[in-house]
Amino acid sequence: MIKVSSAQKLAAKLLVLLFFVFVSVAEARIRYYKFEIKYEYKSPDCYKKLAITINGRTPGPTILAQQNDTVIVEVKNGLLTENTAIHWHGIRQIGTPWFDGTEGVTQCPILPGDTFKYQFVVDRPGTYLYHAHYGMQREEGLYGAIRVSLPDGQSEPFAYDYDRSIILNDWYHKSAYEQATGLASVPFQWVGEPDSLLIQGKGRFNCSTPGIASSLCNATNPECSPYFMTVVPGKTYRLRVSSLTALSALSFQIEGHNMTVVEADGHYVEPFVVQNLFIYSGETYSVLVKTDQNPSRNYWMTTNVVSREPKTPLGLGIFNYYPNHPRRSPATTPPPGPVWNDTEPRFEQSVAIKAHKDHIHTPPRMPHRTIVMLNTQNLVNEYYRWSVNNVSFNLPHTPYLIALKKNLTHVFSQVSPPTGYNYSSYDIYTVPENTNATISDAVYRLQFNTTVDIILQNAISMNNKTSETHPWHLHGHDFWVLGYGKGKFDMYNDQKNFNLENPIMKNTVAVHPYGWTALRFVADNPGAWLFHCHIESHFFMGMGVVFEEGIERVGKLPSSIMGCGETKGFHKP
Amino acid sequence: MIKVSSAQKLAAKLLVLLFFVFVSVAEARIRYYKFEIKYEYKSPDCYKKLAITINGRTPGPTILAQQNDTVIVEVKNGLLTENTAIHWHGIRQIGTPWFDGTEGVTQCPILPGDTFKYQFVVDRPGTYLYHAHYGMQREEGLYGAIRVSLPDGQSEPFAYDYDRSIILNDWYHKSAYEQATGLASVPFQWVGEPDSLLIQGKGRFNCSTPGIASSLCNATNPECSPYFMTVVPGKTYRLRVSSLTALSALSFQIEGHNMTVVEADGHYVEPFVVQNLFIYSGETYSVLVKTDQNPSRNYWMTTNVVSREPKTPLGLGIFNYYPNHPRRSPATTPPPGPVWNDTEPRFEQSVAIKAHKDHIHTPPRMPHRTIVMLNTQNLVNEYYRWSVNNVSFNLPHTPYLIALKKNLTHVFSQVSPPTGYNYSSYDIYTVPENTNATISDAVYRLQFNTTVDIILQNAISMNNKTSETHPWHLHGHDFWVLGYGKGKFDMYNDQKNFNLENPIMKNTVAVHPYGWTALRFVADNPGAWLFHCHIESHFFMGMGVVFEEGIERVGKLPSSIMGCGETKGFHKP
Repeated sequence: MIKVSSAQKLAAKLLVLLFFVFVSVAEARIRYYKFEIKYEYKSPDCYKKLAITINGRTPGPTILAQQNDTVIVEVKNGLLTENTAIHWHGIRQIGTPWFDGTEGVTQCPILPGDTFKYQFVVDRPGTYLYHAHYGMQREEGLYGAIRVSLPDGQSEPFAYDYDRSIILNDWYHKSAYEQATGLASVPFQWVGEPDSLLIQGKGRFNCSTPGIASSLCNATNPECSPYFMTVVPGKTYRLRVSSLTALSALSFQIEGHNMTVVEADGHYVEPFVVQNLFIYSGETYSVLVKTDQNPSRNYWMTTNVVSREPKTPLGLGIFNYYPNHPRRSPATTPPPGPVWNDTEPRFEQSVAIKAHKDHIHTPPRMPHRTIVMLNTQNLVNEYYRWSVNNVSFNLPHTPYLIALKKNLTHVFSQVSPPTGYNYSSYDIYTVPENTNATISDAVYRLQFNTTVDIILQNAISMNNKTSETHPWHLHGHDFWVLGYGKGKFDMYNDQKNFNLENPIMKNTVAVHPYGWTALRFVADNPGAWLFHCHIESHFFMGMGVVFEEGIERVGKLPSSIMGCGETKGFHKP
Repeated sequence: MIKVSSAQKLAAKLLVLLFFVFVSVAEARIRYYKFEIKYEYKSPDCYKKLAITINGRTPGPTILAQQNDTVIVEVKNGLLTENTAIHWHGIRQIGTPWFDGTEGVTQCPILPGDTFKYQFVVDRPGTYLYHAHYGMQREEGLYGAIRVSLPDGQSEPFAYDYDRSIILNDWYHKSAYEQATGLASVPFQWVGEPDSLLIQGKGRFNCSTPGIASSLCNATNPECSPYFMTVVPGKTYRLRVSSLTALSALSFQIEGHNMTVVEADGHYVEPFVVQNLFIYSGETYSVLVKTDQNPSRNYWMTTNVVSREPKTPLGLGIFNYYPNHPRRSPATTPPPGPVWNDTEPRFEQSVAIKAHKDHIHTPPRMPHRTIVMLNTQNLVNEYYRWSVNNVSFNLPHTPYLIALKKNLTHVFSQVSPPTGYNYSSYDIYTVPENTNATISDAVYRLQFNTTVDIILQNAISMNNKTSETHPWHLHGHDFWVLGYGKGKFDMYNDQKNFNLENPIMKNTVAVHPYGWTALRFVADNPGAWLFHCHIESHFFMGMGVVFEEGIERVGKLPSSIMGCGETKGFHKP
C-alpha cells in the first residue's frame, strides 16, 4: 500500500473539483441528473392517492440544458415490483436511438432496483418533455419538462423579460392498473372522465363530493393549494405551456390576457394572437404574455376540457400580479373557455400555426411514399381496440430496435402493415363492422433517407355519436404539418393544397373530429420509432405503429437496453 | 423440403398422443399445469377490487399429484408492468433449489410477457400451498393449494370417506402497493386490519358500511355468496385446512362438530381432538370431521382473528348437510370463537401436535450449532422494521442462489449475521431502544449436513402493549419442533426439556406472544433458503433470514432464473 498524505488527498480533491468546473464552463456541457422513481402518497388535487414520483415529486425536476449539451439521467427504479422506462419527448435521439426510452420499441424495461443511464444530446433549443413510456405509468405522475436554451450570444426571434413553464395534465383517482384492467376486459369497463385537471401538478377536487371519505380528501391540504405564477406588471413573459394529459384535449387561458404563440414543439412560430390556447397531449407551446392589465388584482389561469363532453371541472391557477397576495383568488368568475364540441376554432388554431418567416425549413417537394392511416375504434375478438387501417397495435415481447438490428425475424410479424384503406367505399361517419380487424406487431419499414407522407384520417367512434381528437406523436423526428381538412382526405385534390411554403415542424399533431391531417417527414434517423396517439388509453388499446429506417446504420447497441424477451442473456456487464 | 403425406402426419399425431397416454399411466407421472397471471376485478367479499388471478381465479387451481410425480407449471406473466414469481410452499425442492420461486433468493423475477417453467418432484404426500413470493403479491390473490396423494395401494394412518380442501385467508380492499408504500413511509402509515376473512376465496363485507359506494360493493353479487361444503350425513371427511393470511392468526371451527387433527404441513400427527383449530399463515392441517350431527339443518363454518384485537368480522361458510339447500343459513348464531388475547389454548394446541406414533422421524440427538433469533420490532433510520437480533433483512438486487454459486461476493454483505442476542441483559417485556439496529442482506452459512437448532425468541412490539404471533416458515426443509416456552428461552435449562421422542416435523411454526419456539433441522439440502415470518407485511419490513448450505453441491443453475441485478447477461437462450 502506498501511503497517501493529506496534502495529496487535498490535491486530488481539487483536481476532481476543477474537472467539474471545467466541464460546466465548456461549450457543450454535460447536464447530469439522478432520478429515483418511487410510489408515494400524494394529494395533488386534495385527494390522497398513490403517485409515481421522481425524487419525491410529480411533476419531476425540470431538466435544464443548452443546445448541444449532453444530458445524462441516471434512473433508479425504486418501485417494489414494477419495471419502468422514461421517454424524452421531442428529443430526436440522433445517433442514440437506444435511449429513446420507449419500452418494447427501443429498450427492455428497467427492473426494480436497477439503475439505467440515459445519455443523449439536446441538439435544438426549445420546450420538451419527459415521461414514463411503460404500461400506463405516465398518468400515475411520472413526467416532467425539458427546457433547452440557445447557446450563449444567440437570441430567439422574439423578446421577453422572463421565462416560465407549466405542464397541464388531467388526473384520475383510480390507479392505472384499474384503468388498464377495465380497458382490457370483456365487457369493456371504462374508467370514466378524469377527476380533475392539474396545472403544474396542482388541482382541486371537490372534497364535499358525496361518498368521498374525509380521510382521503382534505381541502385544506397545502399540497393542493392552487398553482400561482407571480408576475411583475408591465413586462413580457415567455410562458412555456405543455400538456401531458392522459385523455383530455384542453383549452388554456389567462383571464383578461391575450397570448402570442411563438413556439410549438421546439420550432419558432410566425406569431399570432389567441385568447385561449388549444393544446393536446404531447404538445408544447411558448406564448408571450404581456402583464399589461390592472395590477391591483390577480387573474385566473384556467384549463378546460374540449372535444369530449367535459365532466371534469375547470383547472384553476392564479396569475398573480406582484405585490398582490399570491393566494388571493380573483373576485371574478373564471372564464368558462370555449364550447367543447365546437371543432371550428380548434381547426383554425391548427391551421394558423406556421413556421416563423426567418426559420422556415422547406420540406422536400414530393414524398417517396404516402401512407394513409385510417383511425378507427373497433372490436377485435370482443375487445374494444383502436386501429390503424383495421390493424390494432400490440407491443412485442422483444424490443424492435434489438430485434431489427439483430435480425430476430421471429419475434414480430414480418407482414407489411396496410398502407391505406378502401377510400372509395369507406364511410367515416358510420361505425364500421370491421369484421376483419386484427391485432398485430408488424412494422412499417421505410427506405432510409426517403420522404414519407402520412395522412391521418379520423372517423366515428363506436358510441356512434362522436369522432375524437387524437394527438399523434412521432418519436425520433419532427415532421412538417402540410395540411388539415374535414371529411375524407382526397388523394387527388387535397394534396394540391398542401402548404409547402412555411409549414410548421412538430412532433405531435392533432387529427380533428371527422377530419384529416397530412404530415411529411424524412426517414433520416436510423432506428425504430413509435408513432402513436398520445392519449394513454388509446395507445394501450392499440393506436400506434412503428417505423423502421436505416437499421443497418444503427451503431452498436448498448447492452443496458437488453435483458427481456429474446434478448435475455444479451446484456454484457 | 421433404413432402409429408397426410398419413405420416396422422402417424406423428398418434405418436404424440400415445406419448401422453404413456406418460399419464407411468408410475411417476408428469403433472402439467399452465398458469396465466393477470389482474382482474373480483368481488370475493362483495367489494370490487383488483385481484391477481391465475387462469381467471383466486384461489388458483389446485395442483393434484401423487407422491414422486414431477409437477411442471408454466407460469405466464400476463401483468402489464409488474414482474412475479411463485413459491411452492412445503415442497423441499431437493435437487431443484432454483425452482423454489423465491424472488431475490432463488431466482430473478418473471417479466411481463415471459413464461417461466417450474419443474419439481413432490416427494412426500400431504397438503401444500403455492403463492406469489414477490413484493406483496400474495395478498392480492395469487395463491392456491397443492395436494399430493399416496402412491396407489398405500394408505394413510387414518380412515375417511371423502377428501376436501379449503384455504383460509384475510382480505384487504386497499392494494398491496398502498400497503407497501405506507409501511415504507416516514412517518409509518399502517393500512389497518383486514377488511374481511375469506374461506376458499369467499367472504362477506358489509356493503352498508358508511362511505362505501354502492357501485363498489354489491351484497347480492353471486361471487361473494358464502362458501359452502356439501357433506353426506354419517360419513368421515378429511378436511385439509390451510391458511395464507396476510396478517391474521385464525381460529377455525365447524359449529357443533369436533375435529381430529391428523396431518400438519405434510406430516402425520398423533390424533387429537379440538373444537377449534388455531392456524397461522403458511400452515396446513388435515382434520377428520364426522358428519354425525342432526342432518336436517346446515352448520356454520367460521374463522376468527386471534392474537390481534379483532377488527375484522368473522369469516363465514356453510357446512351443508345434504340434501338441505346449500345456501340455507343456519338459524343459530355463529360460534364466536375463542377470546383473541388468551394465549394459553394456542400454546396448548402447539404443544399437542406430535408425530404420529407410526411415523416418527427421530431427530439427531444434538445440534452442531444453535442460533438464537430474537424477534423485535424496532426503528431503523426512522423506519419501522422487524428484526432478528437487531438486524432487519433486505433482499439483495442479485438472487442469493446465483450470487453464492458464482461467488459474486460483492452483491451482498459478507459479514456473518449475529447468532444470538444479549440474553442476560435483554428484557423482552420492554420496548428496546435498539439504537444499533441495522438493515442487512447478510446470510447464515451452514456447514453441509450439520444439525442446526433455531430458537425463535419473541418480544414486545413497539406499541408497548402486545407481543405478536409470528409464523416462521422455512424453505427447502422440514424442521422438528422441539419445544415451546414462555418468557426468555434459557439455554441451560430449557434444552433439557426438548421433545426428542416424537416431535412433529413442520415447515411453518408459530412463536407465541412473549414466548419461544425451538426448532431443529439438518442442513442437507444444497441451496439458499429463506426462513421468514409468513406475515406478508412483517417479511416486507425485514423479518427474515437466509441460510446457505452445500452451495458447492448445487447443480448447474438453469439460465431461466437469471437476468436481474448482476446476473444480467447470464441467461442463455
